[in-house]
Amino acid sequence: MRQLFEDELNELHVRFSEMGMMVNEAIFKSVKAFINHDKELAREVIREDKHINEREVELEKHSFEMIALQQPVTTDLRMIVTIMKASSDLERMGDHAVSIAKSTIRVKGETRIPGVEKEIADMSAAVKAMVEQVLDAYVKEDDKRARAIAEEDHGINDFSNEIYERCVAEMQREPDTVVGAMDYMFVSSYLERIGDYVTNICEWIVYLKTGKLLELNSNATEDEF
Amino acid sequence: MRQLFEDELNELHVRFSEMGMMVNEAIFKSVKAFINHDKELAREVIREDKHINEREVELEKHSFEMIALQQPVTTDLRMIVTIMKASSDLERMGDHAVSIAKSTIRVKGETRIPGVEKEIADMSAAVKAMVEQVLDAYVKEDDKRARAIAEEDHGINDFSNEIYERCVAEMQREPDTVVGAMDYMFVSSYLERIGDYVTNICEWIVYLKTGKLLELNSNATEDEF
Repeated sequence: MRQLFEDELNELHVRFSEMGMMVNEAIFKSVKAFINHDKELAREVIREDKHINEREVELEKHSFEMIALQQPVTTDLRMIVTIMKASSDLERMGDHAVSIAKSTIRVKGETRIPGVEKEIADMSAAVKAMVEQVLDAYVKEDDKRARAIAEEDHGINDFSNEIYERCVAEMQREPDTVVGAMDYMFVSSYLERIGDYVTNICEWIVYLKTGKLLELNSNATEDEF
Repeated sequence: MRQLFEDELNELHVRFSEMGMMVNEAIFKSVKAFINHDKELAREVIREDKHINEREVELEKHSFEMIALQQPVTTDLRMIVTIMKASSDLERMGDHAVSIAKSTIRVKGETRIPGVEKEIADMSAAVKAMVEQVLDAYVKEDDKRARAIAEEDHGINDFSNEIYERCVAEMQREPDTVVGAMDYMFVSSYLERIGDYVTNICEWIVYLKTGKLLELNSNATEDEF
């Protein structure tokens, strides 16, 4: 019975990690498509999102069955609960990759701002690195690393502030850039949300190890006001 | 034993619904603060967010204990899993109310656009109505209603498109409005995200009733391209 449970749990971990890699690939492709104005690649991201959604449903189903049939407690239960929760976050990260892909297809702005495109490329590289690291921290159940990764989300917000400043300056200088700059702002906001979801997964890793629900990068500090 | 379980489950439902009302209040106050440039009210939203976070931790803890100690199966287990998942969504809705409150405090734009402020007020009224409806659908476990509420999220996106169009037109016409229009765009995007979280909760209500994980308002339709 215990061996069966261990095998099933291991299978669940593997399937979850695979889902993470699928999502990482989707993010990478969607930004590549946006930067290169590659509508075909963008369509591919949209088409493939259904596999990510199917994987979430499958993980959900298996997790639920394992709880109901094997009635795990303490650490075993926490592992399964973590997968149930974190797989929803992964699925939504995939949705944001789809949003970036849709922006690529709908893109209206004709006037490009190369400096901002460079920032977006750098921001997406940083987000991709965070996603890879969080998947690794999950596999290793490394809560210290998870906390460190959540800290990196500040760096993502710095990119987003930088893109904001540049876009605002361009829009004020040259009204022709307004529509294009708004496209950049949207993509930057999707990447920022993906970073937020990575932080959520970091929180689940801490939960997995310690049983404590923390809010990493709390938004609710009023000291600064 | 069964009676004890029923009582605990009922208590869990009540505490979850209360959390929903706290979040709804936070959203309402944050938008009111933004529209009225009321920094004191905005600070109140930021301060009170910790009660929402504490409530999530408490729900999480009780849910976990109920699964571990009482080993529920089928519908009972699904109810607890739903609360575990949906409370994370409520908590994040509260975080977006905080983001709106922070925008209110940081607001840089001096040039206001009354037409857009009217749209934001209307959009937030629509979001508030959705939040109230989803809490009611949850209490009544009404999955049909949950599907209908998720449909209303298209209306929220219409507001957000309208705000986008107006802001772009103003920014192109008058560079002095760029910074203020970006503030509007941020608040509109937070409201849109809150609408997305309502849709997530609609999905959990469908899951609660049917055991099926659906993606309502799928973003991944490629037919339109």
